[in-house]
Amino acid sequence: VQLVDAARGGDTRAIARLLTLVESGAAGLAQVSSALMPHVGNAHIVGITGAPGVGKSTTTSALTRALRDQGKTVAVLAVDPSSPFSGGALLGDRVRMQGHATDPGVFIRSMASRGHLGGLSAATPQALRVLDACGFDVVLLETVGVGQSEVEVIGQADTVLVLLAPGMGDGIQAAKAGILEIADVFVVNKADRDGAAATIRELRAMIALGTRAPTAWKPAIVSTVATKAEGIDDLLAVMDQHRDWASRSGDLEQRRLQRVVREIEALAIDRVRERLGGAEEHARAVLAGRIDPYRAAELLTYSL
Amino acid sequence: VQLVDAARGGDTRAIARLLTLVESGAAGLAQVSSALMPHVGNAHIVGITGAPGVGKSTTTSALTRALRDQGKTVAVLAVDPSSPFSGGALLGDRVRMQGHATDPGVFIRSMASRGHLGGLSAATPQALRVLDACGFDVVLLETVGVGQSEVEVIGQADTVLVLLAPGMGDGIQAAKAGILEIADVFVVNKADRDGAAATIRELRAMIALGTRAPTAWKPAIVSTVATKAEGIDDLLAVMDQHRDWASRSGDLEQRRLQRVVREIEALAIDRVRERLGGAEEHARAVLAGRIDPYRAAELLTYSL
Repeated sequence: VQLVDAARGGDTRAIARLLTLVESGAAGLAQVSSALMPHVGNAHIVGITGAPGVGKSTTTSALTRALRDQGKTVAVLAVDPSSPFSGGALLGDRVRMQGHATDPGVFIRSMASRGHLGGLSAATPQALRVLDACGFDVVLLETVGVGQSEVEVIGQADTVLVLLAPGMGDGIQAAKAGILEIADVFVVNKADRDGAAATIRELRAMIALGTRAPTAWKPAIVSTVATKAEGIDDLLAVMDQHRDWASRSGDLEQRRLQRVVREIEALAIDRVRERLGGAEEHARAVLAGRIDPYRAAELLTYSL
Repeated sequence: VQLVDAARGGDTRAIARLLTLVESGAAGLAQVSSALMPHVGNAHIVGITGAPGVGKSTTTSALTRALRDQGKTVAVLAVDPSSPFSGGALLGDRVRMQGHATDPGVFIRSMASRGHLGGLSAATPQALRVLDACGFDVVLLETVGVGQSEVEVIGQADTVLVLLAPGMGDGIQAAKAGILEIADVFVVNKADRDGAAATIRELRAMIALGTRAPTAWKPAIVSTVATKAEGIDDLLAVMDQHRDWASRSGDLEQRRLQRVVREIEALAIDRVRERLGGAEEHARAVLAGRIDPYRAAELLTYSL
């Protein structure tokens, strides 16, 4: 709790230590969490996702610079659900973000999943709460890759940016499969390359075909060349528009509510998991062909 | 249950329909599962994983051909936990496997995660049980990518092959981070390329540094050029050796037991999840800053 005070006072090392605590799932987290609660809810949490190679890190870096120019403080949380196997990509990101290393208004941290699946989905809301409570105006939540776990992570954001680049082959193809539902803003990065107009056309067609409610937010499309900071101001403006719309429409509140519902359900299930006993005995019966796994699961829940 | 009989009789469409049922998590699965139980436990389930580009599909195809030459029947289950966003890779795999399309001793199926995380980890054991009960001698379980969800999927195998290729940069680097624990056999594919010897040397050093118990299986290393079917017979021999060792040492039984424990725990948790009520009320209290998420989770479990 002293740590929370220090972190809120702007002590970078205290923030980093809190995040390590969160990442490791250490005991005492409930206490930390409780101390953070009065201070959360102010940061604009912006998710950034997209296939490898579309320029997520460069865009994150350009956004950070532009937000700093507006006088806003920025925290970057790069999350890699595909770890423990990779990690390299995140290291690369950190290096590319070095331009902000000496700026006290910028905090950068990467987080990888340690151990069990779901560990990261559990740690992310806590980590965002730390950064939010520490007073950052904007938290950029960057995920590596676009798999199912990434969708869970990015679902923690108030505004979701999905990055695409022309000529990435199955960019739009991939998008069709599931990105439409989570994107608030499509960012066509590397827009100075051949095929950018086609990508935008396909996106428009896809959005037109979407089945969102008429009152829902219509995903915006912004073209950028992140390496030259082109289009970044437009992107910031659209991000603000979405945030304003979400506040006014009640979408933000609804999204945050659903987020907390998922979070506490997951925590509750962790508690239940610890109480499940006798699984091995039932598993032996399954292996012997005496019962099927569904029946075994039923028997197992009786132990609760 | 009629479907189970038809599938066991070798009706390919019945097998496909059973797998669709499993994938969709449809009701009535318990009944299907129960009908399968007496017939499972005979197939050798071989997991094949590795980073994109190491030649998983080619190796799977070459293994299939070699196993067919030995008179064994083969089912290939290609699983992509990173869907709903991709899917393209799997389609490519299917096309490459077309050489086996007319062989009734080969069954090929790809499976993607539909909807919630964990759906695929839940569906995979059921799908393997279907293929096992249908009498395939070997089931090749191929995963796309090497993330955390892939590790969960590949953990369903009796024998795990981890594929590497020379000159993939961080191949070994990645391996260090977590592959060592799950690999029974390292396959250095594209072994005719520069750097193969170095890759093997690094693998040997890594295995020597490992902390496995002296009685445990020491991961084997096999060099292959899957496109020319070179080394595939060696690989088959090592796969058989591992299977024999696992049977004799009790490792196979232990692995299968742990697998079923995880499966029925997951099913039990699904049942519990449905019974968790009132999450939204507690979530509102969290958003209002009145309680922290841990306390909310505690309150939620009281409802069970």
